Amino acid sequence: MSIEEQFNHVRNHSLFLCRNLITEDFSLQASEEVSPPKWHLAHTTWFFEQFILVPFQPDYVVKQPQFNFLFNSYYNSLGNRTARNQRGLMTRPSVEEVLEYRNYVDEEMRTLISIKDTKVMELVVLGLNHEQQHQELLVTDLKFSLWHNPLEPKVMDIGEYLDQSDGDWVEIKEGVYEIGFDGEGFCFDNELNRHKVFLHACKISGNLVSNGEYLEFINAGGYEDPILWHDEGWAWVNSQNHKSPLYWEKEDGKWSYYTLDGRKEINWNSPVSHVNFYEAAAFANWKGKRLPTEFEWEIAQKDFSWGSRWEWTNSAYLPYPGFKIAPGALGEYNGKFMVNQMVLRGASVATPEGHSRPTYRNFFHPHLRWQFMGIRLAESI
Amino acid sequence: MSIEEQFNHVRNHSLFLCRNLITEDFSLQASEEVSPPKWHLAHTTWFFEQFILVPFQPDYVVKQPQFNFLFNSYYNSLGNRTARNQRGLMTRPSVEEVLEYRNYVDEEMRTLISIKDTKVMELVVLGLNHEQQHQELLVTDLKFSLWHNPLEPKVMDIGEYLDQSDGDWVEIKEGVYEIGFDGEGFCFDNELNRHKVFLHACKISGNLVSNGEYLEFINAGGYEDPILWHDEGWAWVNSQNHKSPLYWEKEDGKWSYYTLDGRKEINWNSPVSHVNFYEAAAFANWKGKRLPTEFEWEIAQKDFSWGSRWEWTNSAYLPYPGFKIAPGALGEYNGKFMVNQMVLRGASVATPEGHSRPTYRNFFHPHLRWQFMGIRLAESI
Amino acid sequence: MSIEEQFNHVRNHSLFLCRNLITEDFSLQASEEVSPPKWHLAHTTWFFEQFILVPFQPDYVVKQPQFNFLFNSYYNSLGNRTARNQRGLMTRPSVEEVLEYRNYVDEEMRTLISIKDTKVMELVVLGLNHEQQHQELLVTDLKFSLWHNPLEPKVMDIGEYLDQSDGDWVEIKEGVYEIGFDGEGFCFDNELNRHKVFLHACKISGNLVSNGEYLEFINAGGYEDPILWHDEGWAWVNSQNHKSPLYWEKEDGKWSYYTLDGRKEINWNSPVSHVNFYEAAAFANWKGKRLPTEFEWEIAQKDFSWGSRWEWTNSAYLPYPGFKIAPGALGEYNGKFMVNQMVLRGASVATPEGHSRPTYRNFFHPHLRWQFMGIRLAESI
Amino acid sequence: MSIEEQFNHVRNHSLFLCRNLITEDFSLQASEEVSPPKWHLAHTTWFFEQFILVPFQPDYVVKQPQFNFLFNSYYNSLGNRTARNQRGLMTRPSVEEVLEYRNYVDEEMRTLISIKDTKVMELVVLGLNHEQQHQELLVTDLKFSLWHNPLEPKVMDIGEYLDQSDGDWVEIKEGVYEIGFDGEGFCFDNELNRHKVFLHACKISGNLVSNGEYLEFINAGGYEDPILWHDEGWAWVNSQNHKSPLYWEKEDGKWSYYTLDGRKEINWNSPVSHVNFYEAAAFANWKGKRLPTEFEWEIAQKDFSWGSRWEWTNSAYLPYPGFKIAPGALGEYNGKFMVNQMVLRGASVATPEGHSRPTYRNFFHPHLRWQFMGIRLAESI
Repeated sequence: MSIEEQFNHVRNHSLFLCRNLITEDFSLQASEEVSPPKWHLAHTTWFFEQFILVPFQPDYVVKQPQFNFLFNSYYNSLGNRTARNQRGLMTRPSVEEVLEYRNYVDEEMRTLISIKDTKVMELVVLGLNHEQQHQELLVTDLKFSLWHNPLEPKVMDIGEYLDQSDGDWVEIKEGVYEIGFDGEGFCFDNELNRHKVFLHACKISGNLVSNGEYLEFINAGGYEDPILWHDEGWAWVNSQNHKSPLYWEKEDGKWSYYTLDGRKEINWNSPVSHVNFYEAAAFANWKGKRLPTEFEWEIAQKDFSWGSRWEWTNSAYLPYPGFKIAPGALGEYNGKFMVNQMVLRGASVATPEGHSRPTYRNFFHPHLRWQFMGIRLAESI
Repeated sequence: MSIEEQFNHVRNHSLFLCRNLITEDFSLQASEEVSPPKWHLAHTTWFFEQFILVPFQPDYVVKQPQFNFLFNSYYNSLGNRTARNQRGLMTRPSVEEVLEYRNYVDEEMRTLISIKDTKVMELVVLGLNHEQQHQELLVTDLKFSLWHNPLEPKVMDIGEYLDQSDGDWVEIKEGVYEIGFDGEGFCFDNELNRHKVFLHACKISGNLVSNGEYLEFINAGGYEDPILWHDEGWAWVNSQNHKSPLYWEKEDGKWSYYTLDGRKEINWNSPVSHVNFYEAAAFANWKGKRLPTEFEWEIAQKDFSWGSRWEWTNSAYLPYPGFKIAPGALGEYNGKFMVNQMVLRGASVATPEGHSRPTYRNFFHPHLRWQFMGIRLAESI
Repeated sequence: MSIEEQFNHVRNHSLFLCRNLITEDFSLQASEEVSPPKWHLAHTTWFFEQFILVPFQPDYVVKQPQFNFLFNSYYNSLGNRTARNQRGLMTRPSVEEVLEYRNYVDEEMRTLISIKDTKVMELVVLGLNHEQQHQELLVTDLKFSLWHNPLEPKVMDIGEYLDQSDGDWVEIKEGVYEIGFDGEGFCFDNELNRHKVFLHACKISGNLVSNGEYLEFINAGGYEDPILWHDEGWAWVNSQNHKSPLYWEKEDGKWSYYTLDGRKEINWNSPVSHVNFYEAAAFANWKGKRLPTEFEWEIAQKDFSWGSRWEWTNSAYLPYPGFKIAPGALGEYNGKFMVNQMVLRGASVATPEGHSRPTYRNFFHPHLRWQFMGIRLAESI
Repeated sequence: MSIEEQFNHVRNHSLFLCRNLITEDFSLQASEEVSPPKWHLAHTTWFFEQFILVPFQPDYVVKQPQFNFLFNSYYNSLGNRTARNQRGLMTRPSVEEVLEYRNYVDEEMRTLISIKDTKVMELVVLGLNHEQQHQELLVTDLKFSLWHNPLEPKVMDIGEYLDQSDGDWVEIKEGVYEIGFDGEGFCFDNELNRHKVFLHACKISGNLVSNGEYLEFINAGGYEDPILWHDEGWAWVNSQNHKSPLYWEKEDGKWSYYTLDGRKEINWNSPVSHVNFYEAAAFANWKGKRLPTEFEWEIAQKDFSWGSRWEWTNSAYLPYPGFKIAPGALGEYNGKFMVNQMVLRGASVATPEGHSRPTYRNFFHPHLRWQFMGIRLAESI
């Protein structure tokens, strides 16, 4: 695809994800962690305006100066912004106005892209990758917010369940390996520098843990045994008496699960989803196994299939040797989150096509569950 | 007006208040204390359905059984309900579906009203008074929620400012007086029984405190002097460093105020609004005066004009002698709130026409400010 | 008793209450509402120093200037003070130093008292009444704090249980009555002015509600029926799943109760204690009765016995007609608490001898239970 | 030293640290993170009783069964325990009784030690290392708690300030290194297994950052520039408007610092202390440097001096390859804390003699400051 085609494709895909929403849904925000669809549509647009059109399009007229306040996400160096938990309160601008904003910026962007300036091209690719990240969030945020509605709305079928066939365990031999991005195309700064790590011998499961296996853990009293849990995990379990993954519900002895296509019976062969790091680690302990490190995962991944769930690793999100923060606001993209978060590798059913790669480092706080997060086991040999 | 005309008039007025809203605005809820417009429209409809159609219309088919859960407000005896702070999350049913629900119930109500059953007539009047209370809340809630939007939307001009002419102080002589409702028409249970109280001699101002007078209090350091405040009031002042009434803002030495018609300069002669009980009492202390009791107010009110601001009294909201709670869910209407709230008398610019009377007892927690609440002074003689 | 004897008696009684404490106990503070014994001993001493010695003893040398910061309770006009929830952190000054402080101030006070200056005499009486209030708090705070210790320490037997004989209901006839203090001796400012109130006919129980009667309420599901409760009371019940009065515990089907003399079986005939306003009102509702107002209580009290429990009334704590706040810091004594609290009348087993009278107005927030608070029923006729 | 001598030495040292405390101080607990001295004295004793005497001394009589509840710290598998923030409320047992408890257990321990059972010897060494950890906490907890007292008590001089001479930067060459404990004596389970890591070339400062250097960061606006901080760090800065390390205070343009020997002027050449991970990382960013990893630190440490401050590393606290959790309650010692904490290497002025080694892994949450925590810089080459 040409860069123009890519641009059109990604920008259209955001709208495509909203095809079944009613106007009311666009402002929905059920917690501080999630954002309303309208905000995602506007923020990704603001990103192109703020980081590309303003600095590189000499006669560009900002659509609405207040949008910088309304749709900035976390760029401290760009000034104040709407409090994160108040994004759902911005009923104005309307959905229609946000769509006009998108059109306005897209038009200008297409003009600018046609000039093929190298720096601009780089930023366009970053902007598209940024938008793809928000596409995944749009889906997972929407699921979380709609789940609060007792009517349990159905808005799309993204194939949350999928059968997996038996995979063998993959062995890694002790030795020095190369880790990090190395190809031609785009990568985020946190995938660099490519560098050496020493790995000890281990093996990694060819399969994700299934709903059925996870149910065994529940039935064996996994949520009642403190020995299996991190200290913080055990506090989390007890804080709200957690007993199962997010979206699971048991009624009349039968488990069901809320999907974006409504509540459904659980498919026991499908990979478990919506577990947090504490649950993933406790499950691994119960099995006498452990989670892989992100380095082990990166080396072994070519020998197993992945892509339906983000996979918790036992690696904290930290900079690679030689990691450099870019100057200016874009430097706030990744580096400043490198504390208290765990790395997830792979991709999920909500990840846009073309947005995943073996060196991709996703990261979340250990207690969070609203992404499509699953478990793959490993063990030292 | 006939009961049919009243019914049509009140039901239409709720829609009239929303005439300038966009679909997005209907779900707006900026705090637990306020509710979205859509919720007000649906809840007042549910009230007619639940308390009149279900028990009295034999073949009535409930529009949607889940609406009982979604649109019940606080009737504990009618089962569970949406958490108060999650009313804004119910994007479904849509605004359109709620309007259909209104039409459906209105149609059925009109049929039932035509039968003129006495018990039904009584409940219809209650339902209309209930809806009028929600009309006032719809306006004040909307103002509060929209105020969170940096775009400061204008949605209607309800005449928040109004000039007042000089009124004399009204004297009350010591003696036994009759308090409480006594006429023919409708009143709430909390206005009964009509009973005797002994009042000591005092006088009450013919005027509400103006914005200009309140500014003097601010400028004299009223918000910095603990001696003027209740202990809880002083804690409230310091909790968020309050320095002025809600919606006031000072920029470049100039005070402005957010109205439903957008931000405006302050009209200094107009009665101050959006002060809480703590502020009202501190202002009175500073003036060497006090707030009237609700009994003094009721006796004196015929000699002064009122109706633009709810007026804080120094009376706690408590039952009148012989107060009886009605059996069933409607018994939850008033009595269970008779603790920790203060009585406000009068009416405000947001009160629907025909909904005020001299014995009306409004009540709010002392720290709240989002209603059109003002101050009238009194003093013992 | 001469004023000198009274002074010695009251000052010694504070120490007497601590006779079984170990040094460690003197700093014990289990919540923001309660204070450590050492703090009570020091604060009551500071009161004499600050309000009497400093202004009236010309050559008085303040014992330790920092004590003003450490031992001021809530007099905002006297400057900053230790945060209320950090009183237990002041391990220095030691208990010994606080006792020295008491001796130092007592010595100076005795010299000053001997001069018999009228203003000083008035303040001494106030200081002694103030100390008696703190003696009651010392006892109830200590009970609350020690209860947190799984060893359930016994420190004194104050006769928390007592049998009561059957009393008749007392009738009040409709009419105008005089309320408020009127005698020769000391009263607090909140008991003034003596004034007229109109009471409607009612009757008041000659007995307090017993533990046995309260158990019937528990067993009848009183804590599970929302209709019986104030809205805030119901929220309180559910906030921590309350099921019985404070200090009650059920083990193996048997109820027990923590007293300052250790855990004991419940005496079913003794008046119930440690219930809050919500519980008192819910119990009354369940009985088809109500709580008396403080005015009804004051008129009827001479015909029934009282003094073992503070009795919740259905009167909010508000100023009497003509109530005046004293100038200066002492004006902060009572008036600034006149919002959001309910009046309790009577006295309790923890009230020092000579500190109770029929016009005494005690007051607490409706949710609090750590005082010896009980229930007396009333009903309109 | 023989094991008997070690035992006596360590047990006595705990008491020695309390030599200047008054009885009141022993119960002091200013926040959930810190524990009272008495609790440290009792808990370390309970550790010997619970893990050694109960299982290995056949006729041992537990001193007081309730002490298991009172003095268990976090061993979930051993049952319930006092809530962490209520340790200061246990005024009983008294200090004297806790000292008796110590004597009782010591006596029994000495008898058991004389038998020289291998498993017991191992556990004794663990118990002594455990007690040494608590000795450091006793000192730092005490400092934190006493600091809340406006009298700023002096209780001991542990030499918090010390001059450092200029050290050169230490270079590490790229290559595979061995990390983890490997000697003869004691180590904690988290220092195992010794394993290989690949390090990239870097250099590490021979000096800790001094108070003077840190002041430059403050004066240059370090606490006002979001670009220097982790996102969570910036939130922490703004949450309470932090402007300097813990215990620093500026009055009349002059900085001072609270030590266990009272408030003192700041020694500008001494290593900065009481900074958290966010501050350490922000300082490093400002300098254009970074923090070392724990692996770099372990390799380079032999070429620089250390021991006065715990040194923040940029390594998250995670298990080494092959890390095994011990069976039973002792398995809860380390592993369950391996999430959301950062590793600190070295030792501090509060670390007991003989308790430090190059492979020792200390760990704390990134926001905490009450330990003697300092900063050493590194940079990639």
